[in-house]
Amino acid sequence: MLLTARDRIQFCRACGAPVVYRIPADDNRERAVCTRCATVWYENPVNVVGTVPVWQDKVLLCKRAIEPRHGFWTLPAGFLELGESAAQGALRETDEEAGAEVDLGPLFSVLDVVRVGQVHLFYLATMRSPELNPGSETLEARLFREDEVPWDEIAFRTVRETLQFFFEDRRRGVFAVHCADIG
Amino acid sequence: MLLTARDRIQFCRACGAPVVYRIPADDNRERAVCTRCATVWYENPVNVVGTVPVWQDKVLLCKRAIEPRHGFWTLPAGFLELGESAAQGALRETDEEAGAEVDLGPLFSVLDVVRVGQVHLFYLATMRSPELNPGSETLEARLFREDEVPWDEIAFRTVRETLQFFFEDRRRGVFAVHCADIG
Repeated sequence: MLLTARDRIQFCRACGAPVVYRIPADDNRERAVCTRCATVWYENPVNVVGTVPVWQDKVLLCKRAIEPRHGFWTLPAGFLELGESAAQGALRETDEEAGAEVDLGPLFSVLDVVRVGQVHLFYLATMRSPELNPGSETLEARLFREDEVPWDEIAFRTVRETLQFFFEDRRRGVFAVHCADIG
Repeated sequence: MLLTARDRIQFCRACGAPVVYRIPADDNRERAVCTRCATVWYENPVNVVGTVPVWQDKVLLCKRAIEPRHGFWTLPAGFLELGESAAQGALRETDEEAGAEVDLGPLFSVLDVVRVGQVHLFYLATMRSPELNPGSETLEARLFREDEVPWDEIAFRTVRETLQFFFEDRRRGVFAVHCADIG
């Protein structure tokens, strides 16, 4: 979804009156402003949080049962919710999508996806066992050695980049925090 | 602002009809769902992005001209906007609030503020000169040596933690990426 395709706000979520886009007095960009109660509604990027779950020499991927990218493989990840930290959200998604029990490791990648207004955060994670119990958003969850990763069927560029960073760091024997602008 | 004090969505931003909070069929938590067009409206944490601007042995702080925490000192930071990366947003805020020209360094701190639904990202930054030109949100911008920092007048816990991480790392001579849950 391109930024320009985002549905603009039409009505005030507080009072239901129409909004207009204009630059408020103390601001420098257009915002949705209610024509009745004058509330200003801001639109901001959201966070996607996930993990790189590792079991021995293998990485866990999930085959998506939902759009977008149905049938493609992803690291367990999803939108950060109110009431949880980024790390807690990453653990929750790992449980919901793969049913994997993991010990969360350090932050590993921070990836801007400006085009869709998202910042993705992935954490390293060590699986406690190879047992998996995929949820309804996952067709199949599987462990892959590096030479088995289905690179042509990876769902998202942030997942591809994070996997590449992971295998590079594992070869070097040092894990860093990686930042990148995905565009 | 406590999470529980957030104003809930009352009306659909697409069609203006009232919403109700209920758990959608394919979900596991309450969302605002439009009673007319059935659109589901998600509410998610937002990002605050900023810098630790350094000039020689000094750090730049800004005295806030706006609420919350009017008159208290902060690192330059603000809400990430659509259409920019986290690093671009941090640079923009540094320019808007302090008028400082900096070379952006690496990501330095990632701080969850779950209570208010925010994730704060601070980047190290090297000032190109000590020239400052504070904007309308800043009463005063000033460079502080470590022993001059007004610790009792720091605006936000994320700023205090980031400054403490910075001075600790500078003493060690090694800068890492710091993650913390501020509560």
